[in-house]
Amino acid sequence: MKILVLHGINLDMFGKRDPQHYGTITLPEIDAQLRKLATELDVSIETFHSNHEGVMCERIHRAHEQDFAAVVVNAGAWTHYSYGLRDALAILRVPVIEVHMSNVYAREPFRQVTVLGDIIHGKIAGFGVDSYLLALRAAVSVSRAA
Amino acid sequence: MKILVLHGINLDMFGKRDPQHYGTITLPEIDAQLRKLATELDVSIETFHSNHEGVMCERIHRAHEQDFAAVVVNAGAWTHYSYGLRDALAILRVPVIEVHMSNVYAREPFRQVTVLGDIIHGKIAGFGVDSYLLALRAAVSVSRAA
Amino acid sequence: MKILVLHGINLDMFGKRDPQHYGTITLPEIDAQLRKLATELDVSIETFHSNHEGVMCERIHRAHEQDFAAVVVNAGAWTHYSYGLRDALAILRVPVIEVHMSNVYAREPFRQVTVLGDIIHGKIAGFGVDSYLLALRAAVSVSRAA
Amino acid sequence: MKILVLHGINLDMFGKRDPQHYGTITLPEIDAQLRKLATELDVSIETFHSNHEGVMCERIHRAHEQDFAAVVVNAGAWTHYSYGLRDALAILRVPVIEVHMSNVYAREPFRQVTVLGDIIHGKIAGFGVDSYLLALRAAVSVSRAA
Amino acid sequence: MKILVLHGINLDMFGKRDPQHYGTITLPEIDAQLRKLATELDVSIETFHSNHEGVMCERIHRAHEQDFAAVVVNAGAWTHYSYGLRDALAILRVPVIEVHMSNVYAREPFRQVTVLGDIIHGKIAGFGVDSYLLALRAAVSVSRAA
Amino acid sequence: MKILVLHGINLDMFGKRDPQHYGTITLPEIDAQLRKLATELDVSIETFHSNHEGVMCERIHRAHEQDFAAVVVNAGAWTHYSYGLRDALAILRVPVIEVHMSNVYAREPFRQVTVLGDIIHGKIAGFGVDSYLLALRAAVSVSRAA
Amino acid sequence: MKILVLHGINLDMFGKRDPQHYGTITLPEIDAQLRKLATELDVSIETFHSNHEGVMCERIHRAHEQDFAAVVVNAGAWTHYSYGLRDALAILRVPVIEVHMSNVYAREPFRQVTVLGDIIHGKIAGFGVDSYLLALRAAVSVSRAA
Amino acid sequence: MKILVLHGINLDMFGKRDPQHYGTITLPEIDAQLRKLATELDVSIETFHSNHEGVMCERIHRAHEQDFAAVVVNAGAWTHYSYGLRDALAILRVPVIEVHMSNVYAREPFRQVTVLGDIIHGKIAGFGVDSYLLALRAAVSVSRAA
Amino acid sequence: MKILVLHGINLDMFGKRDPQHYGTITLPEIDAQLRKLATELDVSIETFHSNHEGVMCERIHRAHEQDFAAVVVNAGAWTHYSYGLRDALAILRVPVIEVHMSNVYAREPFRQVTVLGDIIHGKIAGFGVDSYLLALRAAVSVSRAA
Amino acid sequence: MKILVLHGINLDMFGKRDPQHYGTITLPEIDAQLRKLATELDVSIETFHSNHEGVMCERIHRAHEQDFAAVVVNAGAWTHYSYGLRDALAILRVPVIEVHMSNVYAREPFRQVTVLGDIIHGKIAGFGVDSYLLALRAAVSVSRAA
Amino acid sequence: MKILVLHGINLDMFGKRDPQHYGTITLPEIDAQLRKLATELDVSIETFHSNHEGVMCERIHRAHEQDFAAVVVNAGAWTHYSYGLRDALAILRVPVIEVHMSNVYAREPFRQVTVLGDIIHGKIAGFGVDSYLLALRAAVSVSRAA
Amino acid sequence: MKILVLHGINLDMFGKRDPQHYGTITLPEIDAQLRKLATELDVSIETFHSNHEGVMCERIHRAHEQDFAAVVVNAGAWTHYSYGLRDALAILRVPVIEVHMSNVYAREPFRQVTVLGDIIHGKIAGFGVDSYLLALRAAVSVSRAA
Repeated sequence: MKILVLHGINLDMFGKRDPQHYGTITLPEIDAQLRKLATELDVSIETFHSNHEGVMCERIHRAHEQDFAAVVVNAGAWTHYSYGLRDALAILRVPVIEVHMSNVYAREPFRQVTVLGDIIHGKIAGFGVDSYLLALRAAVSVSRAA
Repeated sequence: MKILVLHGINLDMFGKRDPQHYGTITLPEIDAQLRKLATELDVSIETFHSNHEGVMCERIHRAHEQDFAAVVVNAGAWTHYSYGLRDALAILRVPVIEVHMSNVYAREPFRQVTVLGDIIHGKIAGFGVDSYLLALRAAVSVSRAA
Repeated sequence: MKILVLHGINLDMFGKRDPQHYGTITLPEIDAQLRKLATELDVSIETFHSNHEGVMCERIHRAHEQDFAAVVVNAGAWTHYSYGLRDALAILRVPVIEVHMSNVYAREPFRQVTVLGDIIHGKIAGFGVDSYLLALRAAVSVSRAA
Repeated sequence: MKILVLHGINLDMFGKRDPQHYGTITLPEIDAQLRKLATELDVSIETFHSNHEGVMCERIHRAHEQDFAAVVVNAGAWTHYSYGLRDALAILRVPVIEVHMSNVYAREPFRQVTVLGDIIHGKIAGFGVDSYLLALRAAVSVSRAA
Repeated sequence: MKILVLHGINLDMFGKRDPQHYGTITLPEIDAQLRKLATELDVSIETFHSNHEGVMCERIHRAHEQDFAAVVVNAGAWTHYSYGLRDALAILRVPVIEVHMSNVYAREPFRQVTVLGDIIHGKIAGFGVDSYLLALRAAVSVSRAA
Repeated sequence: MKILVLHGINLDMFGKRDPQHYGTITLPEIDAQLRKLATELDVSIETFHSNHEGVMCERIHRAHEQDFAAVVVNAGAWTHYSYGLRDALAILRVPVIEVHMSNVYAREPFRQVTVLGDIIHGKIAGFGVDSYLLALRAAVSVSRAA
Repeated sequence: MKILVLHGINLDMFGKRDPQHYGTITLPEIDAQLRKLATELDVSIETFHSNHEGVMCERIHRAHEQDFAAVVVNAGAWTHYSYGLRDALAILRVPVIEVHMSNVYAREPFRQVTVLGDIIHGKIAGFGVDSYLLALRAAVSVSRAA
Repeated sequence: MKILVLHGINLDMFGKRDPQHYGTITLPEIDAQLRKLATELDVSIETFHSNHEGVMCERIHRAHEQDFAAVVVNAGAWTHYSYGLRDALAILRVPVIEVHMSNVYAREPFRQVTVLGDIIHGKIAGFGVDSYLLALRAAVSVSRAA
Repeated sequence: MKILVLHGINLDMFGKRDPQHYGTITLPEIDAQLRKLATELDVSIETFHSNHEGVMCERIHRAHEQDFAAVVVNAGAWTHYSYGLRDALAILRVPVIEVHMSNVYAREPFRQVTVLGDIIHGKIAGFGVDSYLLALRAAVSVSRAA
Repeated sequence: MKILVLHGINLDMFGKRDPQHYGTITLPEIDAQLRKLATELDVSIETFHSNHEGVMCERIHRAHEQDFAAVVVNAGAWTHYSYGLRDALAILRVPVIEVHMSNVYAREPFRQVTVLGDIIHGKIAGFGVDSYLLALRAAVSVSRAA
Repeated sequence: MKILVLHGINLDMFGKRDPQHYGTITLPEIDAQLRKLATELDVSIETFHSNHEGVMCERIHRAHEQDFAAVVVNAGAWTHYSYGLRDALAILRVPVIEVHMSNVYAREPFRQVTVLGDIIHGKIAGFGVDSYLLALRAAVSVSRAA
Repeated sequence: MKILVLHGINLDMFGKRDPQHYGTITLPEIDAQLRKLATELDVSIETFHSNHEGVMCERIHRAHEQDFAAVVVNAGAWTHYSYGLRDALAILRVPVIEVHMSNVYAREPFRQVTVLGDIIHGKIAGFGVDSYLLALRAAVSVSRAA
């Protein structure tokens, strides 16, 4: 079973941006923790990051032809306006799980608007790197149940 | 480490209500799965259900004096209007984790309004009983990190 | 054929509250008129009143296992905010008929917001005790047609 | 006692339009059922249909000089925008009862906006032809009580 | 194959009203161009104009019993408020194509509200008389594909 | 100099409808007062009433070819929704003066919405029959100044 | 009979500000025309201008003790926000007539918001200096009818 | 003279919840201060607390038959959504005075929405326990003036 | 201890304006009652009234340099729009207490909008002259606690 | 005559995404049909696709210096938020025609918001690949008329 | 070249109000810095402050007859509601430059509403006294370019 | 001292787009003027342009590690929707100054919405190339003061 993990705009800055919301962990460290958990759960993962909406959409397009069982996505700020990303994800036929490091519900109002809500399977927010790890568990569980 | 798990209004009807959103699992079965995972994680849990807003608030009031490390709460429909429940949870000094079985973001608009957003630590929605299990893992992780 | 008639919050004060909107009839008198009409229509009815949201929801939960052919409900002020009551009624598999004594459309704006609209079969408002009697007729008719 | 029953725009298409909401009964069949019930209730009725707002308003104007005890009106789509019809009905000095065949509260948002709300005596919606029959009973009851 | 072309309120004033938006072509000239194109496309058309909402709805009612393959409609200002016209068109079982001479998206805000959106098959706006001609081509193409 | 005076929907009921807002004067009496003032002002007037939107629009269309110097219009309830009437009046090349008998600004909110605002030359409201008489004076003054 | 005419903020700039909306007439010229018409109508007028909200309110306060039969007021931009002016005018026991030189309905959206609507007797807008003259006629007529 | 003092949901947690807004005083201490002031003012008071909407409404129902001269109520979070509580209070025929310990106008937006506004006699907010003491003075003063 | 009491726009008309909301007491009589209570409470007060926003703001500016312990302000209609007054009060370093004679929550919607909410310490409304007296007590209490 | 045809984000997935709205035709097949029609109409076309907002805008920038007679654009999801694309298109001095395969008016609300409305010449939506073909005809017709 | 610099309501309190937003500089110090820069730029300036809307408007009225090349205005809180000030400034025929000391975009929502936006030439906010100095440079540059 | 100047989407088209708002100056000419002023002010600048959101964000990410004292940014149309750009800028620890060539407050409503407001230090708009030059001065001044 293979899971695709997508990191969106500005997320390569984890570790450098507002530690109150994101802590000091870096994106490579997050990916390492995800790979470690994947091994424990006996699945493989592929992680992908881009700051470019078009590049991200084209990665998702290719996934349409690949054998991923589920997608975990932290769309960063695109969550709040990129209907292009939404439409790309909507084409997939596997569960999409939305992740946020911070509790977006207690931050700026714009972070509480999501354009992905109706195309995701579920959402996990507020637990730092654990949001990703829980999402990977959820992805595996959803896929095994399917 | 002790975790308090709260089930709100109508949730004792799990197993009987709309299987498209909630599956056929019952509340006692959910509690059993939570207890099993708690044992694995080496924590103890207490679960509590009420259909009465006042009873639920008073249970939360008592928790204020007890040594719970975190609270996991599925407030059911109260999520969308009970500022009373919100204020009760806001008094607690431990992390509160919001759980929903269904992906509320793809359902009726009223389910996308939450009155709990600014007092929770994080939120997990859309994974059926796994929402609870992931929330328990999150609660343990958050508490151990604290 | 059995019909369940539910009276919500503050409705035990009929006869004492604003006669301009509710007249002087009392809740026991309304129930008596309903029982008389039930006899005429050759059906049986059960009436239930509570000022407690949780008690009302649990009464509805029990109805899920009982053989009522339809439910007539005057939710009182809960009509305007209790998504908990809405979700409880939505679990039922029989027609739900919403009743109001007064013409809510010509009163305060908040009375024109209903959270029950999409889960009811039909609605009758503005005719005093006749609203209930017409609703009982409707319930019988809907059930016989099913 | 005489009751005026008004059918508004497109209602002559009952029997041909969306059976999910309106069933297969035709307008003449509705009128026949109303006349039969009127006989039972010992009142006389006059029914009137028009697809023309101006014609409908002028019919209502004439009613101002006639001895109707009440008016039952299904305004069809005019319910949602015709302030002209609203003003015509507002001139009458007898109770006006609004009727809808379908449960407008569970349909498109525009059907939940009514321009008639503050000038009617009461409203019945969701019971197919029974909506009309219940409205006739209500009209008779209201008139006899007056 | 027969196509019905409907012209709504004020459209008989084409040629006399604001040339910046509508040019100087008259309604008979539009109909003539449509007939010429219909001959080229080997279909027959019937055109109909009315300034009366009731007359227009009754024309649409009759179409329900006739063998039109599609309807092309420029509803004029009714587009923005006549739910009566919307409901009449919704009864039809053939594709309805909405046409506007001017680009309504760059004019007054009220012209950007349409009550027909969810019952049409498609929409063409902004090309003057070509809007009609393109709509006739679309109607033929849609009908032949069906 | 000729002035066209238009009376819209339900205005033939002046004298019979709500005397608090409209007094007891009738439409023929209003027309008589207008004619008397017209004589004083040395102009001629033509008055026209219709309860039919289409008939009113077609009267306005004809006016486009006639030599009226100005139009005075009390659109009644159409003021609040008939974009069809608005578009018909917008075609005219002479000043249009909007009249209301009552002070619409102190009545229901819907009466404070006008769809005619951007196509009129001026507006007079709140003075009963004097609203008409003042509007005729205004029409003459505007026309003489042009 | 005495009529008080009030000119609000910036109106002493008539003749110098945007001639497209206000023409070139000056405030003293407007007052002169009003006085001339007052003589014709056999009434006396007092005119008052201030750019100071407090001064204007105190002038209105004094009018409460004086024997004016009516007040004509062009509040200028205060019309759109000065609840202070509104409350001052509301204390008066005589009719208040609102005047605007320009047709505020075809200008910026903020000019279509009025805070005076529910305390005035009537409103005249769009006729330049004639708005004032018509208002004086209206004031006299209303007062004589009272 | 007897005054009824009502404490709503979560208010038994005073002393334990956010001291920035509520200080450290407890509910029994508030009641004691109220009783002391009542003695000074030569009135008697009865205090009542409940976290249960239904229990609170039924306490208010009973008050309808008792000889209280006024009611002082701090509805806590119910202030913002419980139309049930609003309707219960609206049945009373004595003045109702709304109290808040904190200045709700400088807190979360939801606390600035009140459903009680149109049924209260007056409101006091922002003075901690003094809000209650001032309200008791107000209640006595209003009752003595009545 | 010195307290500053500010009376805003139109409040010198107390006694002459709407007795339903304000009673018949005059501003000098209110000031006299305040002075009497101040003596009882062993504080001194200074009262100030202006109908001029600029004059009021400059009075508040001077207070910044004076030794007032608190400010009591009834801003009248300025409450609803004068951000200038709000900013002036916000500069002060002592508690500001907002007062209204009438229960603004049961009057026009515009009176329920306040621009002062986030800069005041507390608010008292609905008790006529007692609103002022209670506010003076509150001011003294707040100042003594500080 | 040369026409530029632009395909926006995710449109290279035509044939793989939701066939209910887009059918099974692929982007190369659409381009082939466009080229075939172009030959019939004796014009040349250039088609361009990008998933990258910046790349698309730079293509449009270059078009500013090229001799295209018109632009046909299906902006995909960018239609709903990319003011960057809007501004790029607004720089062009030739007609821009907006195309959608599906009837966006009967889909999600976000698809009914367009940021392109005021800079396009016209719009065609709902006819699948025919939307493109009709748009090419429209582009040729508009250009020839210019 | 002469430039008029206007300081609005409460701005004479600079140096005493919230130093987080405004620093400790006083209005005379700001004027001194402006005069110094004016000398450097070889222009003359006149500065004017008032807390009185009417006084400020009349100063602007006089400027209409004077030979100022541009106006720099910090309207303080009037920015958010004084349409009177807006209309006064709109009469001027020279560029108006809006200035704010603080970054209003990161403060209270009401400060982000401006009534001056459509009548100004440009806006500078957020740089403390430098906002004024930059605005003076801008005024000179705009005037020299004209 | 080094300042980073960022030019966003479509800004390389300055000189070719709407001269009414942007004049005829080109981006290289703007950069040249900035460099000239930088020399005068004895600072160095680096200018950067991209039409690609991802490229722009990555340039900002690199700046996080570079020794810029401030950033000047004209985000073009991204200003109105790119939360991705906002989040990238928010990571920086130096002042960000927003620039617009045109007065966005007098243009389309969408241009008055900014997503950057709460993360900037200040804003300058409406002065053409001078907006940039003033912003550079502001950047230097802010940095020297820090």
